[in-house]
Amino acid sequence: MLSFESDYTEGAHIKILERFMETNYEQLSGYGHDKYCESAKEKIKMACGKPDAEVFLLTGGTQTNQIVIDTVLPAYAGVISADTGHVSAHEAGAIEFTGHKVLTIPHENGKLRAELVENYIKNFYADANFDHMVFPGMVYISHPTEYGTLYTKEELTALSSVCRKYDIPLYMDGARLGYALMSKGTDLTLSDIANLCDIFYIGGTKVGALCGEAVVFTHNNAPKHFFTEIKQHGALLAKGRLLGVQFDTLFTDDLYFAISRNAIKMADKMRAIFREKGYRFFMETVTNQIFIILENGKMEELKKKVAFGFWEKYDDNHTVVRFASSWATSEDAVDKLSELL
Amino acid sequence: MLSFESDYTEGAHIKILERFMETNYEQLSGYGHDKYCESAKEKIKMACGKPDAEVFLLTGGTQTNQIVIDTVLPAYAGVISADTGHVSAHEAGAIEFTGHKVLTIPHENGKLRAELVENYIKNFYADANFDHMVFPGMVYISHPTEYGTLYTKEELTALSSVCRKYDIPLYMDGARLGYALMSKGTDLTLSDIANLCDIFYIGGTKVGALCGEAVVFTHNNAPKHFFTEIKQHGALLAKGRLLGVQFDTLFTDDLYFAISRNAIKMADKMRAIFREKGYRFFMETVTNQIFIILENGKMEELKKKVAFGFWEKYDDNHTVVRFASSWATSEDAVDKLSELL
Amino acid sequence: MLSFESDYTEGAHIKILERFMETNYEQLSGYGHDKYCESAKEKIKMACGKPDAEVFLLTGGTQTNQIVIDTVLPAYAGVISADTGHVSAHEAGAIEFTGHKVLTIPHENGKLRAELVENYIKNFYADANFDHMVFPGMVYISHPTEYGTLYTKEELTALSSVCRKYDIPLYMDGARLGYALMSKGTDLTLSDIANLCDIFYIGGTKVGALCGEAVVFTHNNAPKHFFTEIKQHGALLAKGRLLGVQFDTLFTDDLYFAISRNAIKMADKMRAIFREKGYRFFMETVTNQIFIILENGKMEELKKKVAFGFWEKYDDNHTVVRFASSWATSEDAVDKLSELL
Amino acid sequence: MLSFESDYTEGAHIKILERFMETNYEQLSGYGHDKYCESAKEKIKMACGKPDAEVFLLTGGTQTNQIVIDTVLPAYAGVISADTGHVSAHEAGAIEFTGHKVLTIPHENGKLRAELVENYIKNFYADANFDHMVFPGMVYISHPTEYGTLYTKEELTALSSVCRKYDIPLYMDGARLGYALMSKGTDLTLSDIANLCDIFYIGGTKVGALCGEAVVFTHNNAPKHFFTEIKQHGALLAKGRLLGVQFDTLFTDDLYFAISRNAIKMADKMRAIFREKGYRFFMETVTNQIFIILENGKMEELKKKVAFGFWEKYDDNHTVVRFASSWATSEDAVDKLSELL
Repeated sequence: MLSFESDYTEGAHIKILERFMETNYEQLSGYGHDKYCESAKEKIKMACGKPDAEVFLLTGGTQTNQIVIDTVLPAYAGVISADTGHVSAHEAGAIEFTGHKVLTIPHENGKLRAELVENYIKNFYADANFDHMVFPGMVYISHPTEYGTLYTKEELTALSSVCRKYDIPLYMDGARLGYALMSKGTDLTLSDIANLCDIFYIGGTKVGALCGEAVVFTHNNAPKHFFTEIKQHGALLAKGRLLGVQFDTLFTDDLYFAISRNAIKMADKMRAIFREKGYRFFMETVTNQIFIILENGKMEELKKKVAFGFWEKYDDNHTVVRFASSWATSEDAVDKLSELL
Repeated sequence: MLSFESDYTEGAHIKILERFMETNYEQLSGYGHDKYCESAKEKIKMACGKPDAEVFLLTGGTQTNQIVIDTVLPAYAGVISADTGHVSAHEAGAIEFTGHKVLTIPHENGKLRAELVENYIKNFYADANFDHMVFPGMVYISHPTEYGTLYTKEELTALSSVCRKYDIPLYMDGARLGYALMSKGTDLTLSDIANLCDIFYIGGTKVGALCGEAVVFTHNNAPKHFFTEIKQHGALLAKGRLLGVQFDTLFTDDLYFAISRNAIKMADKMRAIFREKGYRFFMETVTNQIFIILENGKMEELKKKVAFGFWEKYDDNHTVVRFASSWATSEDAVDKLSELL
Repeated sequence: MLSFESDYTEGAHIKILERFMETNYEQLSGYGHDKYCESAKEKIKMACGKPDAEVFLLTGGTQTNQIVIDTVLPAYAGVISADTGHVSAHEAGAIEFTGHKVLTIPHENGKLRAELVENYIKNFYADANFDHMVFPGMVYISHPTEYGTLYTKEELTALSSVCRKYDIPLYMDGARLGYALMSKGTDLTLSDIANLCDIFYIGGTKVGALCGEAVVFTHNNAPKHFFTEIKQHGALLAKGRLLGVQFDTLFTDDLYFAISRNAIKMADKMRAIFREKGYRFFMETVTNQIFIILENGKMEELKKKVAFGFWEKYDDNHTVVRFASSWATSEDAVDKLSELL
Repeated sequence: MLSFESDYTEGAHIKILERFMETNYEQLSGYGHDKYCESAKEKIKMACGKPDAEVFLLTGGTQTNQIVIDTVLPAYAGVISADTGHVSAHEAGAIEFTGHKVLTIPHENGKLRAELVENYIKNFYADANFDHMVFPGMVYISHPTEYGTLYTKEELTALSSVCRKYDIPLYMDGARLGYALMSKGTDLTLSDIANLCDIFYIGGTKVGALCGEAVVFTHNNAPKHFFTEIKQHGALLAKGRLLGVQFDTLFTDDLYFAISRNAIKMADKMRAIFREKGYRFFMETVTNQIFIILENGKMEELKKKVAFGFWEKYDDNHTVVRFASSWATSEDAVDKLSELL
């Protein structure tokens, strides 16, 4: 059955699989000490315009959030997040598991507003009992957000300024970063992000890899002995090549951007179809996720023919559902969807 | 350069890569809810002769040890291990990171003796202050051990009896389990292991997979909500197929055993060559790891031509080194090694 | 200077100090294995009408919350609390430090409404992704709440029913429990609380002890090896008598209740004075805490003469302040306060 | 019955109880922000000859070890301890609970030898896989040790030098520090200790207080926001006066030293009696703990008349037992013991 359920329903971009084939019998050192990991990291630094950045390759998004947040935060501090942030809602307590509180602020279209963050920090230090409370020690944002929305350059600059003013790092979860960068609705480049964030990760799992996220510490700010920390968190791969080959491929000839562009192109086409056919949008998005409000009867009927994601109840008769395109979505699949709608 | 450095220097068995190719565009649900994961789990249960076992697929060995030990142990308990056990020495504190002490007992050829384990437990409960101490709550063994040695059926039965007597689970780290099972020096079958252990894992990373370990809870004894625990430990893959396809392939037509047999065959050949050429063995092993005592000058010379592992200093003039064969070792490579020795 | 800053500004009830004197040279076993601890526990069980309860003596409130919540919750679960709950806001992340998330629900006058708790749990299990989230595993309430308000018998019964329906324990933080029990505005007895809650603690630190909280597991539901868990959390006192003597004294001849009644009597008198003098109440309370809205100029003037607590900003010109009475508050002090107002 | 079971069988020095009486109705701020805590800290700094030290008052020994070790160690590091160290053997895993491994080295009479510590650290960094292992990040010693033995100035200087060479802190557990300082067998002053250690604590619980340990960070090296960390570990007392009054009393007119001297005087007298009566010493000690090898029949008989501690089995017919004197031991009690022996 046709599926727009998520952007991780297919395997990997074919060039990645081919590269696994080509390099399979090369004998390489373990734990990421191999030429593919090295090459991938170099290419990522160049793509970010940050030759001095430090790049680490990890396996999944929750793992990456857990390790970055735990190793960067001091013990007395928590991480500020929108209440809709992935680290707050959908990581099974992976952040708290490592001893840190997620300090939530109400979202606006999935985003954290810089002003609210600054107020939070100001109010914290204005509280006579602040040293009985969890210190705000980092700001977490996702881009695209869980709602598929994007920060503008102005918004990200404002968040970055607040963070620098209070000397706490700004960390961006880029599980779907490619789709943000290729959206027609963004004014942020990868280089902007590398300049404005202290840490961010470039998502592979949802953008054409079998698995893998590349964490970028943008200014020599990786925690001491981060390699050992990765091992301690159970996240070090013996065959580092699994990640090295994938990111080396994705950052060769701009493959990461090209395949992200496909997802956006397909999503834009889907948006036009939904609009044309009179569907009601839950919110305007400019990335690869589309949220539609369906009448429940219609939803039941539709899901016999096409798979999509259930987002939330809208009212007693309607449900918000999600259609996602990806690096793998074909024009043909979108045409078929169009017929079914 | 020729390398016998470890059993994870190559990628994956070619059938795995072919299977990734074949299944790549199938749209599958995430998080392990796909037909390949299901099929892999069924085949593993059958191979173990345990239709009621519960099987979970994880990514790496330290990760698996961390999650199993943390979720199975009560908070007041630690895990008994040989002092040479991987969880004690080489996991960067991954077990302590989750709050549990590793309770060490001196090893004998890398193995835990049942008698010493029973004495440890008896002495614990005989101590008037035992409730001020960490309770022994699980026994961890590796098979093959870190020294490439194997438990006999008698030894494993004895350990299992002690564990059952004191009602604590016996957990086997099978990072290289295939090499144990195919060794000519073993009298233990996979089914024996499934009967004698409460939990064990079948290692993929070192036996032909790009990554992956299959944890088997042998008698409906998986911790409650283990899926959520995996997520909380940062170990849940969005594309569960990465593990499902690999283990499904490895357990189709006994591939796992066939490729393990190759490693043993090559190791046996290497052992014969070393013996013939008068090399001194550090210890007798029957699996894919061979420990040789080299005079330091000889070692320096040799390592210009072939890669091997440094194990430990033997005396001021000699060093113990490790040569490992694997699923990928060719007869040709062994012949070349023979010429260099 | 006269102080109504909190209910922990004085030392201990004089009978406790006298009892320390009398028993000082008795040689007693350590770690709570002494006759005063035993006697205190027996008296508490009798006062609760629960001969089969298990009672443990700990040192402070945050410590007690941390240990109870951590040892009772499974690893995959968090604790539901009002957003104003002490465990959520003012314990420096002590709960998250042990790996558990605090799941917050908006308060109503500092209280958790049973209906909202049930909705939370229902929505959790109705969410298709619930196994990617933190399970609700316990309900935490404080009584009196942080706002000095009280649950009615009906409200507590409703909460208890929800908890029993979903098989999760109801835990009451009774840091100021004496003041709840002696309030004229309560219909809940200690026995009711012991019947409706699965775990609760009787606060000593704020009710006449130098330190100490008595945790009651009401129905043989103490976690296994709780003694060892207390030690592991760093909370076991070598001289258990410090807590034993205090609670034994407090529960002899109903001292705990008598001194709590004094706090209520003084608070009622203070409430009458504030009302008479036209002060504006922030909220109606029936325990030993009184929240008054002061014009900022008035507040600055007043605080030169009497100490009180700053609660929160009300608006640009007004502040909410707290006046607390205690077991130690004298009629004389209240009269002096009256003159200053 | 007469007891020499431990040094925490009595309550507190009478001057402490009197001081509680005298100060009981003074209204003081909470959480250690009171004049007694301030005064105690100042007096301790003066006694150490370290006006710039930072002093914190905590409640118990395991708690203190847990908080100091957890907050001082980086996440990737463990603490080196003798295998007989309290943190290794008798704290129910309190150190591992906070995520850190205890790295053990064989003891010599309960002590860590500087040479072995240096070898451990050297070997660690010489290991090619050291970044897969737990880093040595602190050295823990107890003084007196668990065996009642003492470091000489030369030995402590050697340990201090190793620590400074490798830039890791030296931490001394001084649960019984008074008895070390007043022993005739020591050449170490409190000032020496403050100069040679980076952190140490002055034990109160076993030296005349009801509870309490004073942690000294000797050179402005307290962890950032240590106050909040104390709270997060559940160890902050609302009535900080409980500790402040006790340490202020103990450090007024050298009370701490005077009462420690009593314990030593009584222990020396007991040693003479045991020697005279032909008892066999398990090891020579110079502090308040005496270890005697008793024939089992004799032991059973003796323990009907006097309480003592069981240390360990010596052989099938003999047991090592411990007799401890304390600040509270009277000449009369020693005379009675003499009659019973």
